[in-house]
This record gives sequence, C-alpha cells and structure tokens, in this order.
Amino acid sequence: MTKQELIKQLASINDTKLVMVVLDGVGDIPLEGKTPLQAANTPNLDALARFSELGQAIPVKPGVTPGSGPGHLGLFGYDPLQYEIGRGILEALGGDVDVGAKDMVARGNFATIDNGMITDRRAGRPSTDESAKVVEKLNRSISKIEDVEVSLFPGKEHRFVLKLTGEGLDERITDTDPQKEGKAPLECRALVPEAEMTARIVNKFLSQLADCLSDEAQMSYALLRGFSKYPDIPQFSDLFKMKAAAIAVYPMYRGLAKLVGMSVVETGQTIEDEIDTLSTVWHDFDFFFLHVKKTDSYGEDGNFDAKVKIIEEFDRALPKIKRLKPDVILVTADHSTPVPMKAHSWHPVPLMLHSKFVRVADHKVFNEFECARGMIGTIHSTDQIPLMMANALRLEKFGA
Amino acid sequence: MTKQELIKQLASINDTKLVMVVLDGVGDIPLEGKTPLQAANTPNLDALARFSELGQAIPVKPGVTPGSGPGHLGLFGYDPLQYEIGRGILEALGGDVDVGAKDMVARGNFATIDNGMITDRRAGRPSTDESAKVVEKLNRSISKIEDVEVSLFPGKEHRFVLKLTGEGLDERITDTDPQKEGKAPLECRALVPEAEMTARIVNKFLSQLADCLSDEAQMSYALLRGFSKYPDIPQFSDLFKMKAAAIAVYPMYRGLAKLVGMSVVETGQTIEDEIDTLSTVWHDFDFFFLHVKKTDSYGEDGNFDAKVKIIEEFDRALPKIKRLKPDVILVTADHSTPVPMKAHSWHPVPLMLHSKFVRVADHKVFNEFECARGMIGTIHSTDQIPLMMANALRLEKFGA
Repeated sequence: MTKQELIKQLASINDTKLVMVVLDGVGDIPLEGKTPLQAANTPNLDALARFSELGQAIPVKPGVTPGSGPGHLGLFGYDPLQYEIGRGILEALGGDVDVGAKDMVARGNFATIDNGMITDRRAGRPSTDESAKVVEKLNRSISKIEDVEVSLFPGKEHRFVLKLTGEGLDERITDTDPQKEGKAPLECRALVPEAEMTARIVNKFLSQLADCLSDEAQMSYALLRGFSKYPDIPQFSDLFKMKAAAIAVYPMYRGLAKLVGMSVVETGQTIEDEIDTLSTVWHDFDFFFLHVKKTDSYGEDGNFDAKVKIIEEFDRALPKIKRLKPDVILVTADHSTPVPMKAHSWHPVPLMLHSKFVRVADHKVFNEFECARGMIGTIHSTDQIPLMMANALRLEKFGA
Repeated sequence: MTKQELIKQLASINDTKLVMVVLDGVGDIPLEGKTPLQAANTPNLDALARFSELGQAIPVKPGVTPGSGPGHLGLFGYDPLQYEIGRGILEALGGDVDVGAKDMVARGNFATIDNGMITDRRAGRPSTDESAKVVEKLNRSISKIEDVEVSLFPGKEHRFVLKLTGEGLDERITDTDPQKEGKAPLECRALVPEAEMTARIVNKFLSQLADCLSDEAQMSYALLRGFSKYPDIPQFSDLFKMKAAAIAVYPMYRGLAKLVGMSVVETGQTIEDEIDTLSTVWHDFDFFFLHVKKTDSYGEDGNFDAKVKIIEEFDRALPKIKRLKPDVILVTADHSTPVPMKAHSWHPVPLMLHSKFVRVADHKVFNEFECARGMIGTIHSTDQIPLMMANALRLEKFGA
C-alpha cells in the first residue's frame, strides 16, 4: 500500500477548516548573515511559532531542485516522481488555457524557416502583440483537422500553446523542434501504433500552418514540443475527503490546483485581496490553498529587500486568517528560491503547523534555522497534507 | 522513477571539483561523556563547521549495521539493498585480487578432513605464510578445468580466494561449507540449470584439490562459499557524469571504488600521502573519494586514544585539502564503529557539507551531537552524492 492509498483509506470527514499558506520560494540561504525570513520583522508569524510545531520539508529528494509543477504536486500530497506533469500542460496552465480530459496540448514556438531550414528558432523574438496577431490569423484559418478541433493560444513573445481536442489523441509522439538552427524541422512521429492518428494530425497542422504563414517574414513556421494530455491524476476530494478551494493570483498555480480538482476561486491581485477572498468563501470549503507568489519572484530577481517586504506584508495580513479561527494553519513553501542564487534551489523549505494538538516547544521566531530544529523534523513535502489532516482529526486510526 | 534514475536524468556537467572524505567508522557513542570526535582537538574541522551544513546519515536502514561493502555503496550513491555485493567479491577486493566481468570468485577456507569428515573447519589456523605455501602448491598443480582457468590467491591464516575465469560461469550454486565440524563437506549443486557447468567445475576442482593435498596433515581440504560473479552495477561516470578518483590505502576500499568505475590512483600509506596524491591528480578528475581507514581500525580495537589521535591527524591535514579550493567538501563516514562496542554499529554517521550555497548556522564544532541538530537533518547515505552535486550546481531543475 502506498502512502497515498493509506491516507485515502484513513481519511474521514468532519467540519474542521484547514488553511495551507504557500509562501512560494520563501526558503533562502543567508546573505550577510541573514535570510529574508530572519531579516523580516514578522511579529505575527513569530507569535504563531510559539504555538506551532516547526519543521522542514524536502520537496522531491535531497539535492533535487523542483520546478513549480513538482513543487506544488508535493504540497498537494502527490509524489512528484509518480505524477509527472508534461511541459505542454504546464505551459497551458501558465497561460490560463483551459485543458480538459479530451485535450492534448503542446508548447509552440514561432520560428523562421527558409528553404526548408530553420534559420531562427524564435522568429526574431516578436513582441507579444505581434505574435498574438499571428495566432489569431491561424485560429481563423485552421479550426479542424479530420475530427480533431484545433485551437491556438498566444503566449509571451514567440511562444504559444496548441490545443487539440478530440477522441483518441495520444501524447506518445515526438517533438518537432530540432533544437538547433540550420536544420530542417522534424516530422512528428508516433512512438506507439496507437498514436499514429495524432502524429498525422500534427503533421497536417504544421503543413497548413506553413501555407497560412508563407507571407510572414519571420513568423513563418512553428516548432512544437512537450505534447501532453491532461494527466490522469486522482482527485483531491477523493483522496482526502475535503472540499478544497485554491486562492492564487497566477495562472500556473491556479492551473495546478485545478489539475488535482480544487475549486479555483476568483480573487484580486494582492495578498490582502486573497485573504478577503478566503473570508468570502470560508463557509463553502474545508481546505484552502492560499498562494503568495512574490516571495518567489523577488528571490528570482535577487531582490533581498523586496523579498523581506513581501514576507512582512504577509505577516501583517496573517491576523485576518487567524480571525477566521481555522483548526489547522500550515505555513510552508513549494521550494526555496534563495536571493543569492536568483533561482529555485534544492534547500529544504521551512514549515510551521498550528493546531490545538501540537507539541509546543520554545520557538520564538519562524525561519529556516528554527525550523531545522523543530519538533516535526525533516519530512517529505507530501507528508504535509496528512499532518494537517491528523491535526484536524480527519485521519482514522490505522489498524486496531 | 527511482531516486537513482532521477539523479541520472538531472546530472549535468561543469568544471566544479567535489571531495568526499570518508573517515571510516568515525561515528561513536560517548565513553565517559565524550565521543572521540568530541574529545579530539580539531580546530580545522571546527572552523569548517562554521561554514558548513551539518547532518547525519543512515547507512542502510535505522538499526541496521552495515559491512564495508553496503556502507561504501551507499556513500557512492547506490542503494545497498538494491545492489548486493557477494561475499566472494568482497573477499577478493579485500585481498587485492583483480576481478573482471568474466570472473567468478569464492571465499575459501583450508580445512582438515579425515575419513570424509571435516574435523577442523580452519585447518588448525595455519600462519599466513604456511597457508600461502599451500596456495602456491595448488596453483602449480591446478590451472585449468575444462575450459575454465583456475587461480588461487592467499589470504590471512586459513583463508584464500578462488577465482574461476571463463565463459558461461554462473554464481547460482550452493556453498560447500557444512558450517559444522564432524560433517562431510557438501557437494556443490546448481540452483538453476544454467549453473550446472559451474557446479561440475567446482566439484572437479575440489576433487583435484583433495588429491593434491592428500599428504598435508592439516590443510587437507577446502571449504568454499560466497560464489559471486563481478556484479553488473551502473558505472559512477554514467550515473553522475563525473570523472571520479579513489584515494584509499586498503585493498577493500580501492576494490569497492573500482567496482563502481572510479579510477583508483596509487598512493602512500599515511593520510599525508593520500592528500599529496589528491593534489597530484587534482586536475584529472571531478570527484575525489578520499578514504581514511584507521578511525575504523582503532574503533574495532576499542582504542579510544588512538582513534582521537587519527582524527587529530586528519584535522591537521585538512587545510591542505582546503587549499585546493574544492567547490564542495563532504566529510562523512560509511558507518559508526563505537570504541565501547569494538565493532561496526547501526548509529547514524555525522556529516558536514561545505560549499558556497550552504545555510550557515551557528555550529562551532563537528561531532555527532552537533550534526544531529544540523540543517541537513537525518538523511540516507545515498542522498549525499546528490546533495554534493546540487551544491556543485551539477543537477538540473526537475520539471518546469
């Protein structure tokens, strides 16, 4: 029996409320002696630490740096090595493209083709507006191939998402991007006989696209990669018997939450907006995923002061969450994004679990170092939902 | 996907240098209040601890005491429960016997036989010299059986290594040691049809050996066990994309390193010699396994003061390693060998990881207790190479 099967078997229903706050990329390494969590003035997080268990979580495996997909799947209780989310799906989720069970998506790049050779894999990096116009033109010209509906969605600059909708689509086909300039684009090939129809449709699409774009100077062709169907992933409510709401500003995280079956609710742009949304939908759900993006963005920018300020902004908003009297609050992250590295990293993430059943220790602050010596120890990301459920008395005893 | 498959998929190449120092058996339990690591005067290890992440590693599973084989396989990034190394191979490696893909080896004991019954399983414990002479006599008398080459290598006292070389050898055969005196030696039997040739050769060998030794008073027969072929194990350079050098004095560790495909370089007898070798080959490799044996030997002897002195000897040599400016230094052990137990033990091993990306905490010393409350937490031995690679920026991000 896997861990997930065990939790599914033990999950039970009551009327408790659980809040998982994800401070995206909040974990850091010290710059001039302090991490942003240490440098920030966080009276409310620190006050919560006094009545919480602290710990740290490994998102995938020690040493492994997760992307946003694996990072969030782990938080949602899905082993990221068991459930891999294709590049095309992530691109679609990030672009706010609606993807369902009958859809297959791929990441597209506009490219320049000359005499059958790719001369620029990014078509001279068009502006997002220019590229969107070409996407529109293609959508007008190509809408169906055989029995498969075709739609394109604009992305940033040279990027777009291709969505195919129909019966019998199969993602086991090859990319068409040769990955180098001066080469011909690759033909799409089926890796298994069941995918032959899909490969044929993709090749027909590319041929129609070439015709349609023959008068374009630079965006005259497209390269496709990361074909992926909507993943067959067990739904959050089936696994954990909780009705879950996702409150997130950015499409990627809204999409990942939708993927596991959470209800994505409309919200505004600020942390304050998100917490107002939390209050509004408080009576409609059991579990709340509240995503704070900018801790990660400022980590990626290498902006220490801005990362500190966002942590402080969340800290000021925390009492509003507490006023709702959740039974369990978890403050955690999907991965670390250290300011000195300007990138995601492998470092474990700090976490803080508050309920009335925790072993209160002597913690006076919430940061990476305090968490590393906390009562929870070092766990795997996927252990966090079960710990939250246990603290909400939502897990039955295992065995007699 | 297994952890090893994941790391293999993410491994990337750059020009960083990684040093893994294995202080064999250094972990201990306190005797009169202190462990050897606590009692030793180690200014250089302690200085490194100030700029390192500490942690502890479980070699196999909690409570499981590893032999040198599993202990080192774990350090090298191979799950010791997945890759088992036969007793014969370990005996051969420890005896500095060269073993290759076509070889099968076994551990041999000289024994005394009388009227078909084993009267002494150790042949009166002959001296290593006496035993070596009998090995020589056998090598002169038996060199080939059918198409299989036969060679014997002397070991300590009554022990030797039998090596068979040829096509189609199969290790799935039974031991011939009845494990008790007053019994007849067992016939070698094939456990699968494919091993029948091998069993026949072994039985022919034992019959020729009995003829050859019929005039020996005590070393008149031999018992064979642990038949093992050279294991089919993925090579270190394929898995981790690093060119690895092993610097070790004792044959067993040189052999284990060779098994996973490290280049075993010639070195002298002291820690100083080993570090000189490290300097010499510094530009030829990416990864360096530097093995210090005597911490284990003195643990096995129950010699607290000598174990302390070896730790201090390594400490004095540590600045020479640092002067080479490795990107990552890991100081760890294959297992603990507590002085009061005079044996390997199951206790987690202390570890210290230094790079420019570590979360520097408030550590002022390097010992078992400090490591147990370190930022790395308690990990598995096999996680150490991935952590080193992450700190050398040799692992790509997993997923988008």
